[in-house]
Amino acid sequence: MEVREMKIKEFCDKVAEGTPTPGGGAVGAVVAGLSASLTEMVANLTIGKKKYQEWESEMERIVEDMENIREKLMDIAKKDMEAFNEVMMAYKLPKNTEDEKKEREKKIQEALIKAADVPFELARIVRDIIKDAEVVTEFGNKNAVSDALSSAELCRAAFEIAKANVLINLKYIKDESKKEYYKTELEELENQIYGCWNRIKELIRENDWL
Amino acid sequence: MEVREMKIKEFCDKVAEGTPTPGGGAVGAVVAGLSASLTEMVANLTIGKKKYQEWESEMERIVEDMENIREKLMDIAKKDMEAFNEVMMAYKLPKNTEDEKKEREKKIQEALIKAADVPFELARIVRDIIKDAEVVTEFGNKNAVSDALSSAELCRAAFEIAKANVLINLKYIKDESKKEYYKTELEELENQIYGCWNRIKELIRENDWL
Repeated sequence: MEVREMKIKEFCDKVAEGTPTPGGGAVGAVVAGLSASLTEMVANLTIGKKKYQEWESEMERIVEDMENIREKLMDIAKKDMEAFNEVMMAYKLPKNTEDEKKEREKKIQEALIKAADVPFELARIVRDIIKDAEVVTEFGNKNAVSDALSSAELCRAAFEIAKANVLINLKYIKDESKKEYYKTELEELENQIYGCWNRIKELIRENDWL
Repeated sequence: MEVREMKIKEFCDKVAEGTPTPGGGAVGAVVAGLSASLTEMVANLTIGKKKYQEWESEMERIVEDMENIREKLMDIAKKDMEAFNEVMMAYKLPKNTEDEKKEREKKIQEALIKAADVPFELARIVRDIIKDAEVVTEFGNKNAVSDALSSAELCRAAFEIAKANVLINLKYIKDESKKEYYKTELEELENQIYGCWNRIKELIRENDWL
């Protein structure tokens, strides 16, 4: 299913129906895409304004980066659904003989790791978006500061969705070193994302921008 | 612009371009729509399961309510853009004579109040969604608990977006009693929404559902 070509109402309908995909994972990618669009909008509303001339090239860099990120995110929504379906397929493999049981368990574990990798990729992208949301909050067009804040709030939500999707897969992953590695990286990303989010809120409060 | 009929990629492109609408307000309504879809999905994944039979009629009620809410939200995205454009139009009215100045100021104030009413409507709807997100977290299909949590996180983000959009309009509204009224209601909604959000997080933590 190509998310980018779906109508908003159609995508919502697909999420709402009683099938596990598209679910939180795909929605998280779409929400991150909306967040990237808002940061891109603030950058675009800054470019060409004399008052913000000093930051012109940085804003142009942000527009380009957000365009690329938005493309990637549409793929992630698709990958998330595929990875989930692979897990479901692995669980449905036969388990009549010992060999079949072993093969099934191996396939399940492989599929779970793949399924955990997708929200990780989402979390890393969200980190990149919120870093630029911070730049446009601080140096971008002040008339659009509520849009910069909205972008940051959506990053926070998209990260929490990604985190929930990593955790649900980790529950069933048996490789302890892999689990440890995931948890450490998740924490690192969480610190970075909440660091930016806190600074954005602080900037707005300190400067009375809202 | 009819948001419901827009493709996801097309809506993101429209947000990203250097025009003020669609901006945070319309995005907030779409995000709330995604949240309602996730809560509806969990309810749908609960209906028909023997284990959750006791909650069948409540889940059916939630599906119906979320369907109605999703319809309303698509209209809010449109209303938000229209209200913003009215504010912009009012600012462009002539101000050559004293009468024109008075008339312009009156129109600006009317437009600002209308523009603040739209995110308020969004915030009230978000409160209704997260109440049901709490119900599906507690009593719905536990395989979909990460989707219920995702719905709650999106409610939180949509509320923060609505709040930012109320505050930005309040800055320029001169009617002090109206301002006071808005602030009190905003606080009330905030308490209700964060109350549900906290309980959802607590339920998941206490029961080790994630």
